[in-house]
Amino acid sequence: MSRSIVAAAAQLGPIQRSDDRKSVVKRLIALLEEAASRGAELVVFPELALTTFFPRWHLTDREEIDAFYEKQMPGPETQPLFDAAKRLGIGFYLGYAEIAVEDGETNHYNTAILVDRAGTLVGKYRKVHLPGWDEPQADLEAQHLEKYFFKPGNYGFKVWKTMGTRIGMCICNDRRWAETYRVMALKGAEMILVGYNTPIDHTGVYDFDSLTEFHNQLSIQAGAYQNSTWVVATAKAGLEEGSNMIGQSMIVAPSGQIAAMALGTGDEVITARCDLDMAALYRRTIFDFARHREPKHYGIITQTKGPIISDDDEA
Amino acid sequence: MSRSIVAAAAQLGPIQRSDDRKSVVKRLIALLEEAASRGAELVVFPELALTTFFPRWHLTDREEIDAFYEKQMPGPETQPLFDAAKRLGIGFYLGYAEIAVEDGETNHYNTAILVDRAGTLVGKYRKVHLPGWDEPQADLEAQHLEKYFFKPGNYGFKVWKTMGTRIGMCICNDRRWAETYRVMALKGAEMILVGYNTPIDHTGVYDFDSLTEFHNQLSIQAGAYQNSTWVVATAKAGLEEGSNMIGQSMIVAPSGQIAAMALGTGDEVITARCDLDMAALYRRTIFDFARHREPKHYGIITQTKGPIISDDDEA
Repeated sequence: MSRSIVAAAAQLGPIQRSDDRKSVVKRLIALLEEAASRGAELVVFPELALTTFFPRWHLTDREEIDAFYEKQMPGPETQPLFDAAKRLGIGFYLGYAEIAVEDGETNHYNTAILVDRAGTLVGKYRKVHLPGWDEPQADLEAQHLEKYFFKPGNYGFKVWKTMGTRIGMCICNDRRWAETYRVMALKGAEMILVGYNTPIDHTGVYDFDSLTEFHNQLSIQAGAYQNSTWVVATAKAGLEEGSNMIGQSMIVAPSGQIAAMALGTGDEVITARCDLDMAALYRRTIFDFARHREPKHYGIITQTKGPIISDDDEA
Repeated sequence: MSRSIVAAAAQLGPIQRSDDRKSVVKRLIALLEEAASRGAELVVFPELALTTFFPRWHLTDREEIDAFYEKQMPGPETQPLFDAAKRLGIGFYLGYAEIAVEDGETNHYNTAILVDRAGTLVGKYRKVHLPGWDEPQADLEAQHLEKYFFKPGNYGFKVWKTMGTRIGMCICNDRRWAETYRVMALKGAEMILVGYNTPIDHTGVYDFDSLTEFHNQLSIQAGAYQNSTWVVATAKAGLEEGSNMIGQSMIVAPSGQIAAMALGTGDEVITARCDLDMAALYRRTIFDFARHREPKHYGIITQTKGPIISDDDEA
């Protein structure tokens, strides 16, 4: 008998700056209830699901900035979400901005947590691949300041044994990097959860921005297929503070096929029954890592951050 | 002014076992001439472009086996191809089975060479990711014995500075492995060449085999996009010795977009002008490796061949 889990992507429409936590948590709970009514056992919310995507602005006032972050999870404003999930018996992934005090130092991370069906917080991930810049770019109309607002995640890519499977987490831009999926697949992940906020005005260059949805699909489908994992990917979408963000929340199978996809850019639940044994065929044939990988030729991947361009004719 | 190169994929229809080298080389030269007449400066031929795809059979007679391999390149039968390319001023990539004597040992490789527009052999690559098995599988109708016929390539993934750009090579199954593209991109490759033979009867499981063309596109487009490189990918296609092989030879841009694709499964030339500066936009934004990669979290990729599944709740 096959092992399976009914997963849901709970896409959020825009969150404006004036929307308070209470109203946002109310929307999250409504999505959770919709997912439960459709049999979901695990719900994936977006990246930074409690606030607007504030890295689009260059803010300098510390108090103003820190208002976007959570000091505790759950806190008084998010506790109702945890209570609802426990009552419904649904696990969830939630992205938010985190303030952490570590070794006496205050650090800011772009974070996601994994909560099991009993309401226990089982895992935390901090975004590794921060896109954008650490200072405002004079030539860009739309800023993208994640390196200014967040420190790169210090946990790496972990995998949690929970809810009858092995689950890995990543956030937004992580999904474009092949290493993200590979590290988790090598740790046995059967399911990878990812929330994202993806504006279509990355660069202001039409030839690039018009491909944003294609690149989203391509990255997620390739990551799933090449690593024989399910991927549940959830957007915060729609016109948020003047910026248009893609939806396309999707549940992708280990074959790379899209099992479900959101149709709009508002609050929307999609679900699919994820057969965890579907990956077995791929893992014993084309992607049997133990038989086919050749890590002795991969050294440069971990030896350098940027390219090493040699002047030799052969490198 | 932008740097560019007109590349061609010279797809081959089937080569039956009874087709001799002379007839095959004649087809290769005809494709070369067609490519030249359409402005091509670099032509990519398929993997094992001189013979039928013999790893589908379990052969045991040494002499019978070695008849599929080349002992020298160019040899008497392939010299006319080199002569034609030099005359036309076209560089080329050619896949073939190679017998090499190394340190007194005779080794068999699945090999590709790169020849520049002056007819000089500038690079050789030996297939790293050999799919299939090292002995016949009783339960498989279609055998796939590359690990029986070939030794894994011992050169790794190199990049050659030639023809005004930096070119990397790989072969067939290599294109499904994210590490292949990443290693070459980290060495500055602007263009990756790959020949392939891809049957649609990998497993005999419809749910898997029916996705063969989708997986081909997905792997090549993701590899190009995520590494900001052009990829020229060329099939040996069609009904060969009872096995149906996909065509879909394609030229893919650093955006992941398909610039040209073969329409059939016979001998066919496709071309595209490849703007080598198109990658620059990607490399200075989303895929600026030096700013965004986080290799300290990639360690397991080179530390293990197969997965390491921990019994811990968190790994």
